[in-house]
Amino acid sequence: MELFKRVLAGERLALARLLTQVENDTPTGQAALDELFPFGGKAHLVGITGAPGTGKSSLVNQIARLYRQAQAGMQPVKVAIVAVDPSSPFTGGALLGDRVRMRDLAGDPGIFIRSMAARGALGGLARSTAGVVQVFDAAGFDLILIETVGAGQNEVDIVRLAHTTIVVEAPGMGDDIQAIKAGLLEIADILVVNKADRPGVENTTRALQTMLELGRPGRGLAGKHTLQENEIDFNSGEVSQSGWMPPVLTSIATLGEGVGEIVQAIRQHGEYLRLSGEWEQRQRERLQAELKDRLQGALIARWRSRLPEDIFQSSLDDVVGRKISPQQAVAKLLKFGVNFEVK
Amino acid sequence: MELFKRVLAGERLALARLLTQVENDTPTGQAALDELFPFGGKAHLVGITGAPGTGKSSLVNQIARLYRQAQAGMQPVKVAIVAVDPSSPFTGGALLGDRVRMRDLAGDPGIFIRSMAARGALGGLARSTAGVVQVFDAAGFDLILIETVGAGQNEVDIVRLAHTTIVVEAPGMGDDIQAIKAGLLEIADILVVNKADRPGVENTTRALQTMLELGRPGRGLAGKHTLQENEIDFNSGEVSQSGWMPPVLTSIATLGEGVGEIVQAIRQHGEYLRLSGEWEQRQRERLQAELKDRLQGALIARWRSRLPEDIFQSSLDDVVGRKISPQQAVAKLLKFGVNFEVK
Repeated sequence: MELFKRVLAGERLALARLLTQVENDTPTGQAALDELFPFGGKAHLVGITGAPGTGKSSLVNQIARLYRQAQAGMQPVKVAIVAVDPSSPFTGGALLGDRVRMRDLAGDPGIFIRSMAARGALGGLARSTAGVVQVFDAAGFDLILIETVGAGQNEVDIVRLAHTTIVVEAPGMGDDIQAIKAGLLEIADILVVNKADRPGVENTTRALQTMLELGRPGRGLAGKHTLQENEIDFNSGEVSQSGWMPPVLTSIATLGEGVGEIVQAIRQHGEYLRLSGEWEQRQRERLQAELKDRLQGALIARWRSRLPEDIFQSSLDDVVGRKISPQQAVAKLLKFGVNFEVK
Repeated sequence: MELFKRVLAGERLALARLLTQVENDTPTGQAALDELFPFGGKAHLVGITGAPGTGKSSLVNQIARLYRQAQAGMQPVKVAIVAVDPSSPFTGGALLGDRVRMRDLAGDPGIFIRSMAARGALGGLARSTAGVVQVFDAAGFDLILIETVGAGQNEVDIVRLAHTTIVVEAPGMGDDIQAIKAGLLEIADILVVNKADRPGVENTTRALQTMLELGRPGRGLAGKHTLQENEIDFNSGEVSQSGWMPPVLTSIATLGEGVGEIVQAIRQHGEYLRLSGEWEQRQRERLQAELKDRLQGALIARWRSRLPEDIFQSSLDDVVGRKISPQQAVAKLLKFGVNFEVK
C-alpha cells in the first residue's frame, strides 16, 4: 500500500517515514502532500514561541499531556508536536530536545513528536514545517503544537502557520527583553508568564498587561504580516477587525501549575476564531503565504538553472575588484540575457 | 555638493541623511551606494550576536569606547555601531536602545551609532544593513560593530556580513540555551561569557570550551554558510582551512572588566585573517552573498509585475477549497504563461 494511504489508516511507522520524506522534499514526499492535501484543514494549529530560557518545551509537553486527558463527554484528541529549532542552522541540534520529550510523553499513542532543525534557510524551514503540519493535519491529529526557539522573523513565520499564537515570557530576563516583548506582543493571541515561582513575576505580568492595553490598536490579520521585500504582493481582500483581547496567564510548567487555564484559553481562542470567521481567513492567509513561498522557490530554481556560471563569476570579480557595485552588477546580469517572458 | 561627496568629506549630518536614504532604498540612496562603492573595503566588520539578556549592547558600547582610546603610536580609530534589531518586525523597537546608547557614548565625534529595525523581511534587513555598512566603510570608519538580537538565521546573515563574529553568552540562561549554543558555536570567532559576576560562569565557560574542542572539525568558510534553499548556487572556488581556534573570554561589560582582552582578540583575529588570506576570501563571499540577494530580489520584483492578479487569486481559491494542493497550484501558475526565457 502507498505510504500516504497507510498514514491515512493511522500507521505510526508510515507517518514517521512520510514526515522524513516531506522534510527532505523528496518526490515521494511531494506526491504524498498532493494526495493528502484534500484530507487536511481540520486541525487546530497552535504556535508557541518566546525567548530562550522561558521554558517553552516543558509548557508544550504539559499542554499536550492535558489535552490528552479526556474530559467529561469528550473524546481525547490526538496531539502532534512540531519542535522547530531555527537556532541550529548547521547541526541537527534538535535531537537532544527530542530525546527529553520522548522520555516525558513516551508510550502515549495519541501523541506524535517531530523535531526539525533549520538545515537550510528560514524560507526552507518554513516550507518544510508547513509540509509536516499538513501531514499531521491529514493524518487526523486534532491539535498541532508548533514550538519555536528564537526571536524575530521566526515568529512571523509561525504566525503565518498557526491559528493561535502563544508567546511565553519568564520573569526578569534581562535588558534586551523589553525590545523583544514589543515585537512579540503584536503576534500573541495568548501570553504566558512561565516560571512564575521566580521573583519579578508580578512586574512582568503587569508590564505585559500595560503594554497590551497601550499597544494594541485595532488589529486585524493584515497587521500581523508585514510584507517582505522579496515577496509577491497580492491583495488579499478584506481585513477583519479582531475583537480578541489576549489574556496574560501565569504558569509553572515544571509543576503543571496554570496549564489548565492555558488549555482553556486555547479552546476559547479556537472558538472565537470559528465564530468570528477569522478561522477561515487565517486558513486562507496561511495557504496564500505558502503558495507565495513555493512560487518564489520554484521561480528562483528555474532561473538558477539558466544563468551561465562564468557570467556570474566575472561579474563577481568586477564587484570584488570594486570596479562596479553589486547593484550595477545585478543590472548588468539582468540585461545580459536573462529575462522573464510571458510565453 | 552631492550627498555622497559630503559623506566622503566627513560631514556627520550628510552621513545621517544618506543612511536614511540607503535604509529606505531610495533612488538617491541607490545612486550614492554606487558612487561610494569604490571607496570601501577597508573597514574591519565585527558582528556581535547572542541570545537576549546576555548584555550585548553594553559590551558593544565598551568595545567602541576602548577602541577610541588611542594606544601608544596608534591613531584613534573611527567606530560605527550598527544595531540591528530583527526582534521587532512590526514596530520601530530599536529606538529605545538607541537613546540609551546615545547617553553612553554621546559627544565623541569618532563614534557614529545607527539602529535598524526589521521593517520588512530578514532578506530586506540583511540587504539594508549591508548598504548601511558600505556607507560607513566608504566614509572612513575603521571598525564597524554590527550587533544583532536573536538566535538563528539572523546570525547566519551576520556571519555573511562580518569579518569577525563574536558570540556572547551569559551564565545560567536556562534550558534552551544548550541547543542555541550548538548553532552559535559554529559561527563564532570569539566567544564571550558576559555577566561573569553571576553564578555559574565557570560551568558555562567550561561547557563552551568542551563543545569547542569536540565540535569543531576542520572548518573553512564554506562550512559557515549553509546554502539556502532558494539561493542561487554558484561554486565559489577553493575552501580555505581555518586554523583559528576561537578563544573563550569572560567579561562584566557594565563594569568594563575583560573588555581589553576582547578588543585584543578582535585585533588578533583581524591580523590572522589578513595573514591567512581569509580576509580577502570573506570579503569575496560577502560580496557574493550580497550579489545573490540582490539578484533574487530583482528577479522576483520583475516577475511580480508580470503575473495577472486574477490568475493568482483563482489558483488560491482552488487551494483554499482543497481542490488542488499548493504544489499543484505552483505547477499550474508556472505553466500558465509565466516563464523565464533567455533572450
